[in-house]
Amino acid sequence: MRVGVAGIGLIGGSLAIQLRKTIKNVIILGYDSSELHLNQALDTGLIDEIILENDFTDLDVLLLAYPVKQITNQLPSVLDSVSDKTLVIDFGSTKSRICRTISSHPKRSQFLATHPIAGTEFSGPFAANKNLFDGKVQIICESGKTDNNLLNWALGWFKSIGMVLKEMNPEDHDKHIAYVSHLSHISSFILGQTVLEKEKDESAIFAMAGSGFASTVRLAKSSPDTWSSIFEENKENILETLKHYLSNLEEFKFLLEKENYKKIYETIEKTNAIKKVLKGIKTED
Amino acid sequence: MRVGVAGIGLIGGSLAIQLRKTIKNVIILGYDSSELHLNQALDTGLIDEIILENDFTDLDVLLLAYPVKQITNQLPSVLDSVSDKTLVIDFGSTKSRICRTISSHPKRSQFLATHPIAGTEFSGPFAANKNLFDGKVQIICESGKTDNNLLNWALGWFKSIGMVLKEMNPEDHDKHIAYVSHLSHISSFILGQTVLEKEKDESAIFAMAGSGFASTVRLAKSSPDTWSSIFEENKENILETLKHYLSNLEEFKFLLEKENYKKIYETIEKTNAIKKVLKGIKTED
Repeated sequence: MRVGVAGIGLIGGSLAIQLRKTIKNVIILGYDSSELHLNQALDTGLIDEIILENDFTDLDVLLLAYPVKQITNQLPSVLDSVSDKTLVIDFGSTKSRICRTISSHPKRSQFLATHPIAGTEFSGPFAANKNLFDGKVQIICESGKTDNNLLNWALGWFKSIGMVLKEMNPEDHDKHIAYVSHLSHISSFILGQTVLEKEKDESAIFAMAGSGFASTVRLAKSSPDTWSSIFEENKENILETLKHYLSNLEEFKFLLEKENYKKIYETIEKTNAIKKVLKGIKTED
Repeated sequence: MRVGVAGIGLIGGSLAIQLRKTIKNVIILGYDSSELHLNQALDTGLIDEIILENDFTDLDVLLLAYPVKQITNQLPSVLDSVSDKTLVIDFGSTKSRICRTISSHPKRSQFLATHPIAGTEFSGPFAANKNLFDGKVQIICESGKTDNNLLNWALGWFKSIGMVLKEMNPEDHDKHIAYVSHLSHISSFILGQTVLEKEKDESAIFAMAGSGFASTVRLAKSSPDTWSSIFEENKENILETLKHYLSNLEEFKFLLEKENYKKIYETIEKTNAIKKVLKGIKTED
């Protein structure tokens, strides 16, 4: 079986590890815009061969794991270029524009849209991790539009690498993910930015940073390629969540200015309900 | 040696564990506003006896580890009540008001102001943790105002339980800690609040939450007693940091509205410098 992995970073590299583990005699062909990353992936045995020129003609399966905006832009020509039997699966973090862009493509039935709820703040082939997908949710969109045989192979493989499948329509996906993932990243990036700006004048500040700060700002280490692309793809939903977050922050500021500590206490107490939610989440760290 | 621990929660309970470990024949007397917590502390052997009525008369050392606003309010009368040889140490998260409130107290030299940069999002005596202080920074304020013998005992004990000492004036402490701790908590509380509000209408949302969300929102589990008290004590500094954070978030929103993804990319790339800072922080999780 010949499988192409386009984008050999955190997700693509971790997918390559699972391909090697679960598919006998698999040949993994890697593509990446970074020649450095490609050579690292080859040297460490993540991939067997390099695809240099976006040449996806002779593959059984092609996994797309590069930044999501490029997936949207390139997917039509990628589908044009693959053979009539190749299954193309994308792993991008937003789904609406991707699904819209190929909705009437002649090879629509050879495509499956997915989003693994799995990640770390690291990037590049050295971020590949053999446990990344274990027990994690894999969102599947518009599975009814994918050829049944190809779909069954994909779902079976996802299950075999430990993922928990969940069907969702692309619009709901993008709306919800803006809250539980994209907004977290913005709050963390901007927290990091704010503290770094302050630190320019106050070099002692980080001696006082503890594990709470480290946890809250962890996502601020995430890749600008991945994230500027996600923000562009999911702009409208993210703006909605960001306005909601800003409005709650302004309300908190108002309560503090007015010294309404009773209301601040109640807000915190109510928010502690997040404990129940977090119990169900599997963490890497 | 008779040591009082007032406030048997995360910090007080963890201090009690260290007292037992490092001081031969220590008798630990516990005080807490919650009778439940006191009895739990007694039952689990964290403390030997209960002090029921704020009676701190017969102690060698008294450790204050209840919410910081109450420390400020009660410290003068606590100092009034202790013997002429008792050392009183506070472990509150803000330092300016505490130091100001007893600056001309006749027993000022029996007091030492500290802040351990150590914590988790858990509270109550069951949150006590034998490794909580290991390798962590202990901020010391105005050590010159503490009697030399009492000070030396305190610093020696902090070192013996693995802490790294750092002297800082109370005003600088409160200004800096607002950035690296208090603002992190606000960003996390409000993120939790925002997502919980959204989830009321969209119950599927948390199936999509991953480890990134869990990390960013972890501090939203923190105690309302502890944190409404901190926000009250450090109001002015916190308002300054919050305005800075809000202004950066508004700028991000503006860039997104204007689709200036180049600038968003640069902001993220610059913020990635937080990696270097985080390398030096010891985490529990």
